Amino acid sequence: MPTPATQTHRIVRIGLAGLGNVGAGVYKNLAKNAGLLRERTGCLLHVSKVAVRDLSRSRDCEVPEPILTTDWRDLVNDPKIDVIVELIGGTETAFELVSAALHAKKPVVTGNKALLAERGQELFALAEVNRTPIYFEAAVAGGIPIIQTVQEGFVGNHIRSIHGIINGTCNYILTRMRDAGISYQEALDEAQKLGYAEADPTLDVSGWDAAHKAIILASLSYGYWVKPEDVLVEGIQNIHLADMAFADKLGYGIKLLSVIRADAEGRVEVRTQPSLLPKSHILASVGGAYNAVLVNGDIVGETLFYGKGAGQDPTSSSVISDLAEAAATLVFGARHSGFVPHGLYGKGKPIDETVSHYYVRLSVDDKPGVLGKVATLFGDRGIGISSVVQPEDLSADHTHLVLMLDDAPLKVMREAIAAISAFDSVREAPVWLRVETME
Amino acid sequence: MPTPATQTHRIVRIGLAGLGNVGAGVYKNLAKNAGLLRERTGCLLHVSKVAVRDLSRSRDCEVPEPILTTDWRDLVNDPKIDVIVELIGGTETAFELVSAALHAKKPVVTGNKALLAERGQELFALAEVNRTPIYFEAAVAGGIPIIQTVQEGFVGNHIRSIHGIINGTCNYILTRMRDAGISYQEALDEAQKLGYAEADPTLDVSGWDAAHKAIILASLSYGYWVKPEDVLVEGIQNIHLADMAFADKLGYGIKLLSVIRADAEGRVEVRTQPSLLPKSHILASVGGAYNAVLVNGDIVGETLFYGKGAGQDPTSSSVISDLAEAAATLVFGARHSGFVPHGLYGKGKPIDETVSHYYVRLSVDDKPGVLGKVATLFGDRGIGISSVVQPEDLSADHTHLVLMLDDAPLKVMREAIAAISAFDSVREAPVWLRVETME
Repeated sequence: MPTPATQTHRIVRIGLAGLGNVGAGVYKNLAKNAGLLRERTGCLLHVSKVAVRDLSRSRDCEVPEPILTTDWRDLVNDPKIDVIVELIGGTETAFELVSAALHAKKPVVTGNKALLAERGQELFALAEVNRTPIYFEAAVAGGIPIIQTVQEGFVGNHIRSIHGIINGTCNYILTRMRDAGISYQEALDEAQKLGYAEADPTLDVSGWDAAHKAIILASLSYGYWVKPEDVLVEGIQNIHLADMAFADKLGYGIKLLSVIRADAEGRVEVRTQPSLLPKSHILASVGGAYNAVLVNGDIVGETLFYGKGAGQDPTSSSVISDLAEAAATLVFGARHSGFVPHGLYGKGKPIDETVSHYYVRLSVDDKPGVLGKVATLFGDRGIGISSVVQPEDLSADHTHLVLMLDDAPLKVMREAIAAISAFDSVREAPVWLRVETME
Repeated sequence: MPTPATQTHRIVRIGLAGLGNVGAGVYKNLAKNAGLLRERTGCLLHVSKVAVRDLSRSRDCEVPEPILTTDWRDLVNDPKIDVIVELIGGTETAFELVSAALHAKKPVVTGNKALLAERGQELFALAEVNRTPIYFEAAVAGGIPIIQTVQEGFVGNHIRSIHGIINGTCNYILTRMRDAGISYQEALDEAQKLGYAEADPTLDVSGWDAAHKAIILASLSYGYWVKPEDVLVEGIQNIHLADMAFADKLGYGIKLLSVIRADAEGRVEVRTQPSLLPKSHILASVGGAYNAVLVNGDIVGETLFYGKGAGQDPTSSSVISDLAEAAATLVFGARHSGFVPHGLYGKGKPIDETVSHYYVRLSVDDKPGVLGKVATLFGDRGIGISSVVQPEDLSADHTHLVLMLDDAPLKVMREAIAAISAFDSVREAPVWLRVETME
């Protein structure tokens, strides 16, 4: 049983600026998984103040009135607040807010790619001077921990190249144009209706949102600040169905692709543009609102990271992991290094009770009645048969019987197979394998 | 320019136990990327002693004679050594070695999945008592940073399930059986010849190597120690070509799959066995020596991590990232939190000089000579044409001309397109897109 929080858990107080899509997700998911986070981090992550632009606006989550404020300075100036989460977007107020937090020695968690791509150099210099960290996993590829991977997981690698599909809005629009044969404008309208594109979609469809992310990844990978004016950025506004059709005929798909690549002399190109990709390539099959990043390191080789690249929940997953790291650093000076961080909350399921679909192959006498006997035996045990294949490629007197079975507990399957093995008409030990439907 | 190491960089001295495949990779790659690691970590990672079983054996890397020893105790007892890397394998001596290192307060980096799966509980208790960390990214899925992802990236998520192809040897054998139609034994022989399978392949083909990795992932995900006797493990030794053929006919492939899944009551099943997977599923297309891990978290949703799961270089990438973290914790108390860790070593490449293949679509008058003019113009600028499509679906007097071009620098392409736009026979602004061949 976990010990009560008051006894052993330090409370880490969070000031949350911005309660839009991602902000609301952070608030809700911190509450939903509070117990889990307490056990894993040894800290209570508590949102103690929330800054919003408009108190009267209806929201996606219920926040108690007293902790709301319309002035972000209330978060930075509150001595009880340990960490600031910046999710207001834009580069003006957000810059002021992050600067003020760093001056106040409050670690910052942000998902603001435009801010970091355009003014990161200033902000990280400020972080250095104030010895106060900025965390930004949520800034690139939503829930995929690609920042941590490039910064830490591949720390020993020279990065040869990164190819990424890192804007879900553009990928959704291009996927719909291809699959439904609708125009750019029709696909954009649909994306806006479904909430995959903003009312003003310029930042996404111009390619600049992806370019900001590519600037961050390139700067991390190559250790210098890539300037926005040095990158190539083209949007998807002028992609025609005609070109999709021709590309298709030639064996290609069209994706908004961000490319970061070093040449033999170590010169780095950073660009984002609609590109033709061979249909056989794994990136060509990344559809809809998903993101994928292909990283090629000189030691690790080719690796791929795939997941939802935007949206309330995936992005808040990254914000929360940054909060956990900020909390561990504040409270313990470093992350806990134990294997299972804190508390025990799992329990085993007896393997006998695990349930799967099954594939069964029997070598049987080629006589009437065998299938009936086998089917009855499974039926009596409550196991459904979804299909039967009986090929005719064996000798005259015996044949294979291949059955696909619906869900069955392992214990029941073992008994059924043992019973079938005892049939006179079954010639060899049955072959049986699990079928993972991946539902 | 990076400052000389003597001025600003702490030397972190490494004792390396084991100079087999992965050990040699760690030694070589630490040397190869020493400058990069010094800039990124602020530390000089220096291998100061290496323990091997047999001094006379020929090796994959050149280690100076004086730093070799045949007694691992020399590493643990050397007061100058800061960190121990355990890559000797097995669970007997390795247990002694890791225990002794922890008692001596030396952080341990290990890639030994069998050791952690079977005796992890004891070792991590010892780590806790001695307040000395164990790092083990290399223990699961080679170069893929899946441990860090589960432990940190997804710290805010209840893990719903993990599905993994996490044994490259089995995946190679099964892939070859399917693609070449050879038997299990033939594929195993081939894998051994190519170095993908050991002389004694039992640990791999029995499913136990993958099971050890699944035990580690499950324990991390659910916060309790999964016992080896509670997991289901089946190997691939009895997979027949007949079953591969039937599975194929039914729309499935056969993979050695590790499954970790919690049911509605939070009971966890952990199992590794050959399984049928729908061919359309992304895991079914993971071939050869690659690994892939599909993680489903309650906040982040479905994510996939893919890369080389074994081998000298990929696995040493993970060992080196653990060494970097151990060094940062030893020297700075925590990882550096800056954006670009240390030093500046990249430089931009002018976008005009970036080179790609290109797709070009022209709307032209349907008259003889147009293609010749266009082709001559590209040819004069040194740009090759790899294919031309001229569909016949437009009006009588004009048509599309679609060209696929070989490598061209952006500057040259811009000039060529401007020149073509000026042709009388070209009716609209040319459409031109990059083609990423992903070479």
